Amino acid sequence: MHISIILYPDFETLDVFGPVEIFGKVPDWKMQFYSRDGGLISNRDGVQIATESFNTMPQSEIDTLFIPGGTGARTLILEADYINQLKQLAQKSRYVLTVCTGSALLAKSGLLDGKRATSNKLSFEWVKTSSLQTQWIEKARWVTDGKYYTSSGISAGMDMALAFVQDKAGETVARQIATRIEYRWQQDSQQDEFCLK
Amino acid sequence: MHISIILYPDFETLDVFGPVEIFGKVPDWKMQFYSRDGGLISNRDGVQIATESFNTMPQSEIDTLFIPGGTGARTLILEADYINQLKQLAQKSRYVLTVCTGSALLAKSGLLDGKRATSNKLSFEWVKTSSLQTQWIEKARWVTDGKYYTSSGISAGMDMALAFVQDKAGETVARQIATRIEYRWQQDSQQDEFCLK
Repeated sequence: MHISIILYPDFETLDVFGPVEIFGKVPDWKMQFYSRDGGLISNRDGVQIATESFNTMPQSEIDTLFIPGGTGARTLILEADYINQLKQLAQKSRYVLTVCTGSALLAKSGLLDGKRATSNKLSFEWVKTSSLQTQWIEKARWVTDGKYYTSSGISAGMDMALAFVQDKAGETVARQIATRIEYRWQQDSQQDEFCLK
Repeated sequence: MHISIILYPDFETLDVFGPVEIFGKVPDWKMQFYSRDGGLISNRDGVQIATESFNTMPQSEIDTLFIPGGTGARTLILEADYINQLKQLAQKSRYVLTVCTGSALLAKSGLLDGKRATSNKLSFEWVKTSSLQTQWIEKARWVTDGKYYTSSGISAGMDMALAFVQDKAGETVARQIATRIEYRWQQDSQQDEFCLK
């Protein structure tokens, strides 16, 4: 499994690195970080991470596309060219995973029309405006619909990541990783103590 | 509060970025990433992070020094010069926080002699060899002794980070951050379901 991780300025730190910690523990799973133009991508936590440009991504099929949230999503969602680039990448991906407001970027492309999805609780009303045709599920730690996995805010991405590992590599592997990283896995996607409703 | 984060090759991803996510949400807290020689520091998850060199660190007092764990700690602990550099940085820091096997690097310097500390569960026997004079506490999510905060493995660093925020900025701030990042905070340092004994 090869996971292509999308970064952009002001991505949310843990949206990315919680799942990265987990995926990195699955035997033979590899990750690569990409941004539109490549180079160092920074955020408000002082993190600067090296990326390759979209041009260098696999031209045919992508195994798994991973899209985090962050305050940067609020401006990117207004850029039609960027959303169209994301759409093309998502269309040729076998799986697409989003954390937090990453689902708003994906929904804006239209690819979540008619599908179930979730997002960050504190940004939920804004996220819903990204696509009125998406069936937004507010009370969920994460939601799976076909090839799309969308998680709630920030830390919830780790529970979704473990669920993805469970689906693709088995529950034993996922459970072993949770224990190894001393993470208290919320294994039930319906349990969501952060839902405001 | 200014937090100086130490990186080295093959640091553990979440050891660093779990706490960074939390510290970044405290008003007026700033972070800077450092490594011995500066430049990009990479690990086995494909992460490459930009750092400044130790030479550029504050020459007088350091607010808070943060030392993560990782497989890279296993080789660094054998380098007397590096351990001595860490010791000097820790001595001039008001607070020193470690996650996972980061406590082994700190203990090797002798600064944890006579103090209580903890570490990663699966590496605990190895960690104990770093200092026979440290009082190693195996059943603890994290341990505080004076200016030293040491946490158990990987994810436990987030609970310790929230405890540090609670101590320095108040419980209300810590609780708000946990809710905002949708993190199920283990607030009791004594509760440790990952202890093997």
